Amino acid sequence: MNYKILDKNNIIEYIHSIEEIKNYFKVDDLFIDEIGDGNLNYVFIIKSIQNPKKALILKQAVPYLRCVGEEYPLSRERMSYEIRALNQFSKVTPMHIPKLYDVSEEMSCVIMEFLDEHLIMREGLINKTFYPNFGEHISTFLAENLFKTSSLHLNSTEKRKLSDNFNSNTELCKLTEDFVFTFAFMEHETNDAYSINHELAKELFEDTSFKKAVLGLKYKFMTQSDALLHGDLHTGSIMLNEKQTYIIDPEFAFIGPFGFDIGALIGNLIMSYTSHVALSSDNKYINWILETIEEVLTKFEEKFLTLWNLQEESALIVDGFIPDHDLNKYKKEFMINIFQDALGYAGCKMTRRMFGIAGVADIRDIEDEQIRDNAIKMTLDIAKVFVKEHKEITKIETVLHIIKEKTK
Amino acid sequence: MNYKILDKNNIIEYIHSIEEIKNYFKVDDLFIDEIGDGNLNYVFIIKSIQNPKKALILKQAVPYLRCVGEEYPLSRERMSYEIRALNQFSKVTPMHIPKLYDVSEEMSCVIMEFLDEHLIMREGLINKTFYPNFGEHISTFLAENLFKTSSLHLNSTEKRKLSDNFNSNTELCKLTEDFVFTFAFMEHETNDAYSINHELAKELFEDTSFKKAVLGLKYKFMTQSDALLHGDLHTGSIMLNEKQTYIIDPEFAFIGPFGFDIGALIGNLIMSYTSHVALSSDNKYINWILETIEEVLTKFEEKFLTLWNLQEESALIVDGFIPDHDLNKYKKEFMINIFQDALGYAGCKMTRRMFGIAGVADIRDIEDEQIRDNAIKMTLDIAKVFVKEHKEITKIETVLHIIKEKTK
Repeated sequence: MNYKILDKNNIIEYIHSIEEIKNYFKVDDLFIDEIGDGNLNYVFIIKSIQNPKKALILKQAVPYLRCVGEEYPLSRERMSYEIRALNQFSKVTPMHIPKLYDVSEEMSCVIMEFLDEHLIMREGLINKTFYPNFGEHISTFLAENLFKTSSLHLNSTEKRKLSDNFNSNTELCKLTEDFVFTFAFMEHETNDAYSINHELAKELFEDTSFKKAVLGLKYKFMTQSDALLHGDLHTGSIMLNEKQTYIIDPEFAFIGPFGFDIGALIGNLIMSYTSHVALSSDNKYINWILETIEEVLTKFEEKFLTLWNLQEESALIVDGFIPDHDLNKYKKEFMINIFQDALGYAGCKMTRRMFGIAGVADIRDIEDEQIRDNAIKMTLDIAKVFVKEHKEITKIETVLHIIKEKTK
Repeated sequence: MNYKILDKNNIIEYIHSIEEIKNYFKVDDLFIDEIGDGNLNYVFIIKSIQNPKKALILKQAVPYLRCVGEEYPLSRERMSYEIRALNQFSKVTPMHIPKLYDVSEEMSCVIMEFLDEHLIMREGLINKTFYPNFGEHISTFLAENLFKTSSLHLNSTEKRKLSDNFNSNTELCKLTEDFVFTFAFMEHETNDAYSINHELAKELFEDTSFKKAVLGLKYKFMTQSDALLHGDLHTGSIMLNEKQTYIIDPEFAFIGPFGFDIGALIGNLIMSYTSHVALSSDNKYINWILETIEEVLTKFEEKFLTLWNLQEESALIVDGFIPDHDLNKYKKEFMINIFQDALGYAGCKMTRRMFGIAGVADIRDIEDEQIRDNAIKMTLDIAKVFVKEHKEITKIETVLHIIKEKTK
């Protein structure tokens, strides 16, 4: 089907052309509504009038940034990468990806399960909801997908084929290069008005050793082809409840460094932490966030190593090449590298949310300026250590110690 | 034109279909002969009978390994990567690439300048020929091509486009992964018969700290997307005389780590060095090789940094992001990293030539077993330091010191 922009009026016609969707709704009458919270894309809900529990989400990319309009062109091919990533993640961890009913790169469109019993994690965190299974789930998602799309698992040909599918996600990689690694750390027109004359912003923009370390992390982001990344794994890209965890919106997917997604997640959990400390939320919730950070890091490493230990040959290792004892030393150093990169990226992700174009509601929505500035200060203090000193940190307990020290 | 295998009988018909070649030879009668020294491909010379100085080389890939035959299939698409690399290198350093008269990915064929006054460098080195301009030329080739195909020069989109053109050179990357980084360091059927029961081979195959370090270098080879590499830059891929230097045979081209080509070259120069030391060649020649190694490393760094200092914005650095003082510190560390990786790769390349499938004539053709073993031992002694300790070496003079110490 040739591309056309879908709206409330032509969606029914479109989905009638798709066998899978016809089978799902059968003869039900359909109610269609736009869900207005997509920044980049149009998102619709398609609901059965006879049985409102029967509902699907349709998400379509348009050739511009939805939240700005046609004057900000952004090629709709971003949806192709989202589709490819959703397909790949579904193969590896189907329990953490919404069920896909139809995907079409031609139409830049995906139709998927409607998650009606799940909330965007950032909102849940702001509302102090406990998610007892989150650490277990997300560490599985990270370990399984990172390992199984890497040269530690794939053979050389499979890995290059995978790279081919994501290499051209140029525009969205460029957005990250600009907005995560550059503009938010210097005076720039895209920064939040709040940053102008802000003492902490001035201090940050003049911190040249911080910037030098950022260059290293940015360079690695652009050139280290470890594994398929979600590319934007903050707490707004996760929908969950106490029992289930789903990952959404992987349009930034590309082959990048192992530590990037882990860092994005940890950085966002820490911003939730600093916000609650600043707001003097109850200790129980604050402690749960910290325990979750520890759990994610610990279980990720365990699960990744377990997969690696079960792996026979791969692009990297040929049977009989090296004895287990030495291979295990190699693996241990390898895991420390991932861990350190994750901290570096967590630091970048946290910092860029302070004065850059896109804040996080956890902190930017704090109304009291003094409390907000306190949250910003704590976040920056932690982030700067991560960015500048990540290559010296080797233990998860050091991470927890830094977080606690900088928020006392 | 649909692909067909060319031979002495149908080449004239083929080149008559190409305007550029018709213009070159005009009405001359042509003499065609096969040049038998291609391992992978067929190579023909096309000569004017009236004016034998007028001659071109035609190189065509067949869907198998030429030197073995049809029972060893190797897809002819390797020539597409060679063509793309030749085109790219010609744009940047035309003076070091044979003039291209016609290239055709469909025909897996390239027709280029015949270098009748130039010799394969390995032969020249074996015959103790001095090449006074080689260090100057090859450092230009390396610095210009590595810098200008990297994220230090290209913008984000250009870099990803370049990657797209080379990402699928899967088969030849796999050959390097297997033969440069793996099989030659363990007991393997593809190794030279010479390795069986050889004391030095046994010692090497049991050196687990060497192998652990190799894994790190191999992993980087597979995942670090710095710049366009020649991919096989040994002294057999260089044709030269005292005045001119040409790079040929880039079918292994792909986007890989900066240090790999430099390492290949340095490693091969060192094998020439150890062979001449073992053969007690005159000191003047031995010293010239050492000076050339120093010159290549020194001038590469100078030229790469000069290009970088002239560079305004690129994918990595945005104007106004970081003051020059700190940027220069970053650049210095960056150059040390390239240098260290180059040593690591030099060590791998040298080691794999000792017992692996493909030896170098410099050493393997030494008839006297004791002299040959001495050359092997010196080569391995240097290579092991490079592989295991490259991250501790920061100065070019240390490299020269190691080479001299291990060949005393």
